[in-house]
Amino acid sequence: MMDPITLEPIGKITSCYGQKFGIPRQPGLARRARAVIQLPYDQGAQIKESVRGLEGFSHIWVVFVFHKNNATKRVGLVRPPRLGGEKKVGALASRSPNRPNPIGLSVVELLALHYRKEHVDIVVQGGDFLDTTPVLDIKPYLPYADSLTSATTAWVEPIKDLRLTVSFSELALKAISAEAKNHSELICECIRESLSLDPRPSFGKTKQTQCQQKREWRSLIFGFDVIWTVTDGLCRVENAVLKNRGLVESLIDDQNGFKN
Amino acid sequence: MMDPITLEPIGKITSCYGQKFGIPRQPGLARRARAVIQLPYDQGAQIKESVRGLEGFSHIWVVFVFHKNNATKRVGLVRPPRLGGEKKVGALASRSPNRPNPIGLSVVELLALHYRKEHVDIVVQGGDFLDTTPVLDIKPYLPYADSLTSATTAWVEPIKDLRLTVSFSELALKAISAEAKNHSELICECIRESLSLDPRPSFGKTKQTQCQQKREWRSLIFGFDVIWTVTDGLCRVENAVLKNRGLVESLIDDQNGFKN
Repeated sequence: MMDPITLEPIGKITSCYGQKFGIPRQPGLARRARAVIQLPYDQGAQIKESVRGLEGFSHIWVVFVFHKNNATKRVGLVRPPRLGGEKKVGALASRSPNRPNPIGLSVVELLALHYRKEHVDIVVQGGDFLDTTPVLDIKPYLPYADSLTSATTAWVEPIKDLRLTVSFSELALKAISAEAKNHSELICECIRESLSLDPRPSFGKTKQTQCQQKREWRSLIFGFDVIWTVTDGLCRVENAVLKNRGLVESLIDDQNGFKN
Repeated sequence: MMDPITLEPIGKITSCYGQKFGIPRQPGLARRARAVIQLPYDQGAQIKESVRGLEGFSHIWVVFVFHKNNATKRVGLVRPPRLGGEKKVGALASRSPNRPNPIGLSVVELLALHYRKEHVDIVVQGGDFLDTTPVLDIKPYLPYADSLTSATTAWVEPIKDLRLTVSFSELALKAISAEAKNHSELICECIRESLSLDPRPSFGKTKQTQCQQKREWRSLIFGFDVIWTVTDGLCRVENAVLKNRGLVESLIDDQNGFKN
């Protein structure tokens, strides 16, 4: 009935989140989450000209593809984690990646724009992107049109007060500072913010409470395999093992004068 | 380099704007602008289940296709009307429909949800959609993630104070009330809001000032061919001729208990 539309990604995202587990469920929840949107010049979209003036905006929309979700999966109902993973709502009444068309939408803080030899790098923070995410569009955030302070929601409330307290073991701190050197503070803060959101699935939380077991969880953040546990509402980073040094270097590059 | 992605629209929009000329340049600027997003059940996306719970949100995002823009047109730079149509900025640094991928993004007020026999109707207001626009996705508006009051912009300022005053001739008022009966007030308000934004292209405004000619402009709003002029900053609706009665009926349906 309606013609399909074929879109070519204009670039892809290098993100501090290396796997789906552990990604904040909305942008802005882990402010230090770093990502670099890389737009190659050779995509036929006149990218160098297209981004001119973008640096004047504090925030941008990123329209992207949930590329690791099964696009043929036609989910009608989803279980939002904010409802404890039990109650179902319609996919279009949620921001779940499981939706009729796998399009994601996130607003992020713009840190810097760098014109490289073969692509432009758009450095952002506060994103909720999986590494290697394809990007369809970038738009400036316009507060007068996009910021609706009076909007009301059915069941989604701010989760500030639900955060876990996160501490680091000596072992983890040493591992991160040995590998990441003067970037270790930023990386630790990003890990802290990300884990404070308690990415465990609802059934994992329940199970732990019932069995009193200290289960180990793992998240790939900033190239580190982060091993953490939760006991009595306190999250502890037990260890962190560098798996991808290149990712750290792609995301944090002191040579290029990023804004903090 | 990156795989293209093929998306199937989940539905289309019946909108009060029948042509590109005269559509507000952002959503929310003409609050009475009415649209009905029609999502058919037979698209394989489990639409009836997908929209469950959407009615609990006051506002929704609509991700749509700029279907009347030339998708092969790879525009690098555009001339935003807010810059007087003279200065150029990058397409990705603007909300212009002329962009690498023709994806539109608008937040609108949700008025009602109706389950019809073969589709669901999502009635919204405040949109900036062209009639027959294909829809790719619907998402609830989440103020805690989407509303950034502190965001700053390079060159886009609110345009409240730039509005034209709009008056109606007796002829136009009579024509609208004869055809639209008890909906004429809503339709007049939508026309007033839309024209107050002064949709004339920048060169049209300049030309008129220079030649002192009273040029007639036409907009297709709510099924009416609206003929209007601008003199000394005052916009006057000279006449309105009903061209599409079906559109009025699709957009305003008293039988179904719309809010407001």
